[in-house]
Amino acid sequence: MTATVKPILDLNAFRDDASAAPAGSLLARRRANFGAASVLFYSDPIEVVRGQGVWMEAADGRRYLDFYNNVPSVGHCHPRVVAAIAEQAATLNINTRYLNQRVESYLERLKATLPDEVSNAVLCCTGSEANDLALRVAAKASGGAGVVVTEAAYHGNTAAVTDISPSAWKLAGPVPAHVRIVPPPSAAAFGADIAQGFADAVAAAFADLQASGIRPSAFICDSIFSSDGVYADPPGFLAPAVAAARAAGALYIGDEVQPGFARTGDAMWGFARHGLVPDIVTMGKPMGNGFPMAALLTRPDLLALFCEDVGYFNTFGGNPVAAAAGLAVLEVIAEEGLQANALAIGGHLKARLAALAQRYPMVGAVRGAGLFIGIELVQPGDPATPDPAAATALIAGLHRRGVLIGAAGRYGNTLKVRPPLCLTRAEADLFADALAECLEELPTA
Amino acid sequence: MTATVKPILDLNAFRDDASAAPAGSLLARRRANFGAASVLFYSDPIEVVRGQGVWMEAADGRRYLDFYNNVPSVGHCHPRVVAAIAEQAATLNINTRYLNQRVESYLERLKATLPDEVSNAVLCCTGSEANDLALRVAAKASGGAGVVVTEAAYHGNTAAVTDISPSAWKLAGPVPAHVRIVPPPSAAAFGADIAQGFADAVAAAFADLQASGIRPSAFICDSIFSSDGVYADPPGFLAPAVAAARAAGALYIGDEVQPGFARTGDAMWGFARHGLVPDIVTMGKPMGNGFPMAALLTRPDLLALFCEDVGYFNTFGGNPVAAAAGLAVLEVIAEEGLQANALAIGGHLKARLAALAQRYPMVGAVRGAGLFIGIELVQPGDPATPDPAAATALIAGLHRRGVLIGAAGRYGNTLKVRPPLCLTRAEADLFADALAECLEELPTA
Repeated sequence: MTATVKPILDLNAFRDDASAAPAGSLLARRRANFGAASVLFYSDPIEVVRGQGVWMEAADGRRYLDFYNNVPSVGHCHPRVVAAIAEQAATLNINTRYLNQRVESYLERLKATLPDEVSNAVLCCTGSEANDLALRVAAKASGGAGVVVTEAAYHGNTAAVTDISPSAWKLAGPVPAHVRIVPPPSAAAFGADIAQGFADAVAAAFADLQASGIRPSAFICDSIFSSDGVYADPPGFLAPAVAAARAAGALYIGDEVQPGFARTGDAMWGFARHGLVPDIVTMGKPMGNGFPMAALLTRPDLLALFCEDVGYFNTFGGNPVAAAAGLAVLEVIAEEGLQANALAIGGHLKARLAALAQRYPMVGAVRGAGLFIGIELVQPGDPATPDPAAATALIAGLHRRGVLIGAAGRYGNTLKVRPPLCLTRAEADLFADALAECLEELPTA
Repeated sequence: MTATVKPILDLNAFRDDASAAPAGSLLARRRANFGAASVLFYSDPIEVVRGQGVWMEAADGRRYLDFYNNVPSVGHCHPRVVAAIAEQAATLNINTRYLNQRVESYLERLKATLPDEVSNAVLCCTGSEANDLALRVAAKASGGAGVVVTEAAYHGNTAAVTDISPSAWKLAGPVPAHVRIVPPPSAAAFGADIAQGFADAVAAAFADLQASGIRPSAFICDSIFSSDGVYADPPGFLAPAVAAARAAGALYIGDEVQPGFARTGDAMWGFARHGLVPDIVTMGKPMGNGFPMAALLTRPDLLALFCEDVGYFNTFGGNPVAAAAGLAVLEVIAEEGLQANALAIGGHLKARLAALAQRYPMVGAVRGAGLFIGIELVQPGDPATPDPAAATALIAGLHRRGVLIGAAGRYGNTLKVRPPLCLTRAEADLFADALAECLEELPTA
């Protein structure tokens, strides 16, 4: 069940394809500035000028329903968050080597949503930084370096976390020596008993590390398995895998960058769906609704161990503007009932998508929790065969109908549904209707 | 000249010393939230509530002249930057996978301040992220991993850059196998010909790496050698070291996180003082005057090489709010003449500090450029012996007089002078007068 050769992933189809761009055009300027690192959505990329709620507006006046971007999770440019940023930025923006009421108030409010065990926080700027630090905290505690991840995992962009992010690798080749890859927790990989199959795969992966003389350090996963294609059910399936990891001497890092902050509807955090308490929790993306901020929370003993060897200080992390943004996000989630909304509207949307799956054989599965849903596209008549071309066609069709969405999974054949949590029932229906039209256009044989 | 054992650095004296904090006090809350990673300035830490220009205000109403924090470089809470952030945050905050005018306008304005060679930019959130990526770009281009850094260098907080940041190491022990350490470019280490001595040390360090079977990859330095204790003169001294690094097959990474954005007065970028064009430039801290943003700029061929292997995408990096903040910073620097001000006020301040060095034997040297000045404290009568206790006493004395400042260098005996660039002559005199009073209090034998 463990892989030692990099999987060849079906990468995002919408890379900048270097098609003609008139001199002086925005696209030409972009290419001159970004160079080879330029990655754009859509071969005819969108110039965005405004965002509000679940909507984005392009320079040509077109409006798009945003089912893609899970950073502006309480809604694009939410006035409450914008006001908090503006007010605090005008008052004080300084690092955490001074005391500040707002920073502590924020952390207390954040910790109230989390298990008591993870009571120490390190504030940083990106999920990448949080996961990079998490690996180091785990390495110190475990005395090891071995990490187990899923096949299409993405945990960030630093050197250390790129090593554990198969979905960032462009070339086949050896997997880094300290890393082992397991399939996502899917019925395709493990049959009916996903919990046991996935746990066995994790156990085998750590055993393989040990057999190679590499001591286990961490099992890290995003509990909604977003980049693997969204796997949420049955609730609790993750627990045996975490137990297997711990039995091998590894820590469980709960990467909540994707599922965190109420998106899954049933809880504030994705790991709660599985009845788990991580040794280390990391979070980012929606934390400040777009203000760059992220965090690691862990047990005081683990953080104290780590701090024996090196200091950690993050210049921008935990500044009071970030705290103000983060506090506003938590207040908006609570006051607008966004977790309950994610559950209700997500449930409605999932039911509508399930109905489409009944009607259209290319929809192989609809999976997810709350407003984090995956729609898997397969060959009609051959549900075991992924159909990334269908996913690509649907993304293009939805784009034409004013809906933004992306794909995930090893084969890029699962549409990722991640609208802002303030989505209304009418907007959910708008998406489902548009998707139905696009499915109708697909060839059925 | 190369070291393979970690230097034991005299760490920042103002760590949270776990002295009594009344239950429920802000300090007690802070400790409960931050745990062992809490590092505060001053044993009686300051609760800051407001910042404006070069001033910070504490909860008790005391005002402090900020000679420490080089992030709010155009002045704390500059209204132009605050307005730009507020306006853009209310309009659109989205990632760089869409086209956006503001982002390209910003990059074009930024690139106009840089050498033509480094024309591709990767926008990220922290200097740590930029340097982490820089090491990877250099590794791909060089085919090597060997890095040479100075003795008390600091290049950030990810796993990869902590390996090349001796000033973050708390314990003695072996230096990471791929790293070699050279002394800072000081007369103490190299005598009169600093340029030649430093270049020889860098050449020897790379030769030592090669002798160990490690191919040279990068020579990375902050061109003002901030954490080493500030070394600026003679202009051009860095060029032979860079030539030696390139002769060994390494790239030159110019870490401009500290000296960049006009602080050195004579140029926008620190490497310009040495007549150099880096292969890779990294920048951060003052880039958004506190808005979390950073960048790597490099040659298109180097970035294209890197992108062959892996993708790089930064969720928050280069969002239009960051671009708005960064653009406002560049506009303020230009319109308020802050580079010229750094040169003029910095020159005045340096002259006043040099006069103090004449009068007080414990001031061993005053070094620097523009508003980046180091004041080295030594044993009176024994100028070769660092006196960190004197630096600590001065920091405490200045704190009592309402001036915030910190220390740097392997022995922590050099005061780092880094006020906002809008410093006036009167404020510079206020600092020099306060320092004179503090020096007067120091024991002279």
